[in-house]
Amino acid sequence: MTSDLDRAIFEAGIKLGALYHQWVGTPISRKSAASIESAIEQAVILQPFVEEITVRLDRNLMTENTFGYSELSGLMFNVELVTRVGFAYCRARLVPEDGYPLMKIVECYAIAEISRHR
Amino acid sequence: MTSDLDRAIFEAGIKLGALYHQWVGTPISRKSAASIESAIEQAVILQPFVEEITVRLDRNLMTENTFGYSELSGLMFNVELVTRVGFAYCRARLVPEDGYPLMKIVECYAIAEISRHR
Amino acid sequence: MTSDLDRAIFEAGIKLGALYHQWVGTPISRKSAASIESAIEQAVILQPFVEEITVRLDRNLMTENTFGYSELSGLMFNVELVTRVGFAYCRARLVPEDGYPLMKIVECYAIAEISRHR
Amino acid sequence: MTSDLDRAIFEAGIKLGALYHQWVGTPISRKSAASIESAIEQAVILQPFVEEITVRLDRNLMTENTFGYSELSGLMFNVELVTRVGFAYCRARLVPEDGYPLMKIVECYAIAEISRHR
Repeated sequence: MTSDLDRAIFEAGIKLGALYHQWVGTPISRKSAASIESAIEQAVILQPFVEEITVRLDRNLMTENTFGYSELSGLMFNVELVTRVGFAYCRARLVPEDGYPLMKIVECYAIAEISRHR
Repeated sequence: MTSDLDRAIFEAGIKLGALYHQWVGTPISRKSAASIESAIEQAVILQPFVEEITVRLDRNLMTENTFGYSELSGLMFNVELVTRVGFAYCRARLVPEDGYPLMKIVECYAIAEISRHR
Repeated sequence: MTSDLDRAIFEAGIKLGALYHQWVGTPISRKSAASIESAIEQAVILQPFVEEITVRLDRNLMTENTFGYSELSGLMFNVELVTRVGFAYCRARLVPEDGYPLMKIVECYAIAEISRHR
Repeated sequence: MTSDLDRAIFEAGIKLGALYHQWVGTPISRKSAASIESAIEQAVILQPFVEEITVRLDRNLMTENTFGYSELSGLMFNVELVTRVGFAYCRARLVPEDGYPLMKIVECYAIAEISRHR
């Protein structure tokens, strides 16, 4: 049997994998970065089981190409989200680590047993 | 030889093809649609040769799935942009036509000869 | 602490979310479907922690538009994969369910304790 | 009025812009590169007005990350395609130039007048 906690973890993975591949490659600059951050947050929060999401894109990596803009790359992402299934929660992150855009579980917890009587 | 007009037309095609495949599949709802429109506009305007762009996504097609949101699909796009190369311009559109998300040139013009003396 | 099992589940979610948003929107037909299936499988198997993957795209949904082709949509996906972290495994699927492309855990298991002595 | 030549050029732009943003970010390695090349070619040739396409992805840039694979990036693309509308043709390319993945028209031509009598 799959527990609520298993599913909260699974959903956190889905959301991070999805947002990475939906937006990587988007033309971006320091000036437009805020609008992309907001669009990603608003798109992800719509999806089932997402409780919180914050997206911060690293402006320092937005070096301009010949034509004066940059492209959203994996190492620019700094994302944290919380998923919930039933009474189980998972907090996960997408952050650069050793030059790789790493997705990892930060913490997760579940209420093991709930007293239903007074 | 490629003329400025040829290149303005080519660039208009590039931008429409690019934005379609970058953004199609994004989770979306009537509430978040404005943020996605703005993010697309800001991403496209960054790119070389783009003078103007307006993006309008059709809320009527944003019917909710089991989980209360929708996915950005080709027929939702209503985009108009203007590209410029030198003194040549191209206005192009992405709009639904007969159930297909059609990209087409609306008009384009170039200043054929410029008087360089006073 | 995050267990190997938690991470196997998380990685399964990442991979399904990622492939969905990477490939949705691709032009496709019954004739080219096999090449897309193979490319998805080969792209996913490269990624860390993926042990197995099979991708089958539903030809019945590949109805031709005005121009004689179709676009890879969520409901066409029929994917099953297995991830492994340490001695923990997760088998997960992306399949249509009630008109929604559902990602779900099929089964997961871990060796709870390993006898290290003879 | 838009000529067939204008439309052939426009379509060439659309196809290059589209394929770039559809596949950039795909996990890739030297071993899987051929399958991705084939999938892109087969997906693009389906689309209206495409007569020929060859896709070659630069293996030299496929340096392995911590986990032993790479990600399809703009500079890896080496694409040439031919579009046709009526009796007009456009040959265009996506190739790296000065560290930028440049899309450009190689040549285009149209039969200006066709003799319809013997």
